Amino acid sequence: MSAGTEAPQASAHEEQAMLRALELAAKGPARGVNPRVGCVILDADGTVLAEGWHRGAGTPHAEVDALSRLAPGAARGATAVVSLEPCNHTGRTGPCAVALLEAGVDRVVFAVDDPGHHSGGGAERLRDGGVTVVGGVLTGPAEDLLGDWLTSARLGRPLVTVKWASSLDGRIAASDGTSRWITGDAARDDVHRRRAAHDAILVGTGTVLADDPSLTARDDHGDLLPEQPRPVVMGDRPIPRDAAVHRHPRPVVVHHGHDPAALLAELRAAGVRSVFIEGGPTIATAFLRAGLADTVLTYLAPVLLGGPRLAIGDLGVDTIGEAIRLTTVGVEPLGDDLLVITAPDRSASASAAHDLTA
Amino acid sequence: MSAGTEAPQASAHEEQAMLRALELAAKGPARGVNPRVGCVILDADGTVLAEGWHRGAGTPHAEVDALSRLAPGAARGATAVVSLEPCNHTGRTGPCAVALLEAGVDRVVFAVDDPGHHSGGGAERLRDGGVTVVGGVLTGPAEDLLGDWLTSARLGRPLVTVKWASSLDGRIAASDGTSRWITGDAARDDVHRRRAAHDAILVGTGTVLADDPSLTARDDHGDLLPEQPRPVVMGDRPIPRDAAVHRHPRPVVVHHGHDPAALLAELRAAGVRSVFIEGGPTIATAFLRAGLADTVLTYLAPVLLGGPRLAIGDLGVDTIGEAIRLTTVGVEPLGDDLLVITAPDRSASASAAHDLTA
Ligand SMILES: NC(=O)c1ccc[n+]([C@@H]2O[C@H](COP(=O)([O-])OP(=O)(O)OC[C@H]3O[C@@H](n4cnc5c(N)ncnc54)[C@H](OP(=O)(O)O)[C@@H]3O)[C@@H](O)[C@H]2O)c1
Ligand SMILES: NC(=O)c1ccc[n+]([C@@H]2O[C@H](COP(=O)([O-])OP(=O)(O)OC[C@H]3O[C@@H](n4cnc5c(N)ncnc54)[C@H](OP(=O)(O)O)[C@@H]3O)[C@@H](O)[C@H]2O)c1
Repeated sequence: MSAGTEAPQASAHEEQAMLRALELAAKGPARGVNPRVGCVILDADGTVLAEGWHRGAGTPHAEVDALSRLAPGAARGATAVVSLEPCNHTGRTGPCAVALLEAGVDRVVFAVDDPGHHSGGGAERLRDGGVTVVGGVLTGPAEDLLGDWLTSARLGRPLVTVKWASSLDGRIAASDGTSRWITGDAARDDVHRRRAAHDAILVGTGTVLADDPSLTARDDHGDLLPEQPRPVVMGDRPIPRDAAVHRHPRPVVVHHGHDPAALLAELRAAGVRSVFIEGGPTIATAFLRAGLADTVLTYLAPVLLGGPRLAIGDLGVDTIGEAIRLTTVGVEPLGDDLLVITAPDRSASASAAHDLTA
Repeated sequence: MSAGTEAPQASAHEEQAMLRALELAAKGPARGVNPRVGCVILDADGTVLAEGWHRGAGTPHAEVDALSRLAPGAARGATAVVSLEPCNHTGRTGPCAVALLEAGVDRVVFAVDDPGHHSGGGAERLRDGGVTVVGGVLTGPAEDLLGDWLTSARLGRPLVTVKWASSLDGRIAASDGTSRWITGDAARDDVHRRRAAHDAILVGTGTVLADDPSLTARDDHGDLLPEQPRPVVMGDRPIPRDAAVHRHPRPVVVHHGHDPAALLAELRAAGVRSVFIEGGPTIATAFLRAGLADTVLTYLAPVLLGGPRLAIGDLGVDTIGEAIRLTTVGVEPLGDDLLVITAPDRSASASAAHDLTA
């Protein structure tokens, strides 16, 4: 939005309607391919004519949902207040910008620019059609509601969290491979909570074959948490038929190949906004090396192990200037352990975070 | 001190005299082979007859110093109040227990038991000679004053601090060996302050040959701090004649051989109470593996390096049950870095610390 001197402003009625649009948006599904969006149609006096919201992929967008509640022609000269810039993209539904033009609205007020590479440009299309467009209204709360969807749309891939638990000297196991337990209960509980907050959890075939993990998110009694990330396994070796991951409440996604970017593209197409990478070292190293990590979670236990079982392998850092520099986001004591939360300095999300606050 | 039901107690006069003995002790040298000790001689009414303190190796002990200020026979029937149990050991001076017996004192009040393997037993010798002995008076402040001397006397070796600075993934350099800088200014300043607080600073020949460090303690302008640890280099390879360590204000101690315990014995004999081990990895690993570390300082920079340059090598931990477990003493943010201060759980100093608080 470039705001000229005579840029139109939202009225008090419209701001009020935007708050309502955000309430409506929040009724939509918090996860999946599509964002949560709400829409309120106002007449010239600011009276609400109709409301709508998006119920998930394959259902009408919020604007179309709201318009569908009006008699033909009833939106002529009206104002559409919508929490995300109307799309300009023909998918399972037609572009909302066109639907609004065809309905004859005079004015469109929205909160957040559409970050989509395909769907963006709706505001321009509306302006070209003679509609007054006001963007950037209540952007902050609207962005908060969009959450991971917005960040992953801006990145063009799911958000990636890489996690490992190691000794203070960077080992994930003793020489013989034993590692139960390096970190304590509080750290493990924290990991499970974070698993539940991600759409998918990823390990390599190496971890499946070595540890047979269930990849579920559990509480401290071992019971399943209400939200379960989709289990994803990457690598070419077959997963044993009786592997615990097959008993996960959600079907396992198996991705053959070794290309982190290809995996992320596949997951994004499947509606995954955030991936929690739990290792092993080969997978964690591959994503870090590819610059495809937005958050790095290092759980450090007060223990020394030495030996060959490293948390992170060769990152291709030949000389100190090539080091992967991180910004520390937080340090949390968890029982006897320490969680260090960092974000790569030049990561796409660091710029995304910058965009958000710019 | 086993306190029976009729164990004698110190009087108010004697406690007062002990506070004065501690003041006198504090005039002695804070570093070196011998402890700081003060002594006050009281007559039967609690009037001060003489004071003394120890001025360092080769000079009279505090009791002898105080007695020497009295006319012959003047201490007969008096009370000696001394901050450390009188020694029972014939060194450069005779045993203080015998000197007190010969002077005819009736009563000895002391603060801290003598932890020395050779010098202990003074209280028993005095009791055998018919003297009333009261130990454990103002032990806390007296122990604080003795500081490292007491801990190293109890351990029978200098206190050992092992320090390294690494990336979050446990590397001390990039693949090509470059490491300037992993940590920032605040961490480096902290290291210099801690160097100054130790009697000696130790590296292996590997670090001398690779980095040519000065091993001095400097302020943030690069100027020498008032206290300088003795530089110590361990290993068989010769140190270059023009190595920076030769320009250290104190002469470098070169220890040939690879045995950590032998090095510590040599340093203790030379009056070193505390050693700051700055690496490299080979030396740090050798001391940790030998169980000869009392404090571990891990400076962690928010950076990832990967690759072969590990902070710590093979600790001989074959299986997770053999892990070197640490107790976290503190976590300090230093600029962008994090200092994690830990102590090995089963280290001699952990038991020493336990003794102190028992
Ligand atoms: N402490 C912790 O936080 C933690 C967490 C997880 C695992 N672990 C430990 O890690 C160990 C397993 O290590 P790992 O490194 O073998 O496991 P991994 O990273 O889970 O799996 C590695 C495998 O993934 C496949 N792969 C996928 N993408 C790849 C790429 N870009 N480059 C190379 N290979 C790729 C390869 O298998 P294919 O040949 O099948 O293609 C590779 O052998 C286990 O001992 C486990 O206990 C520790
Ligand atoms: N980031 C940090 O905190 C930090 C601190 C210091 C050094 N460094 C880096 O560490 C690297 C040097 O590593 P390094 O491991 O070679 O250095 P080192 O530990 O200083 O020296 C190793 C040498 O010490 C001798 N030695 C003494 N006791 C030994 C024992 N018990 N076992 C084996 N050898 C013993 C051996 O040399 P002889 O053959 O001569 O007997 C051995 O080669 C440099 O690149 C330096 O930059 C980093």
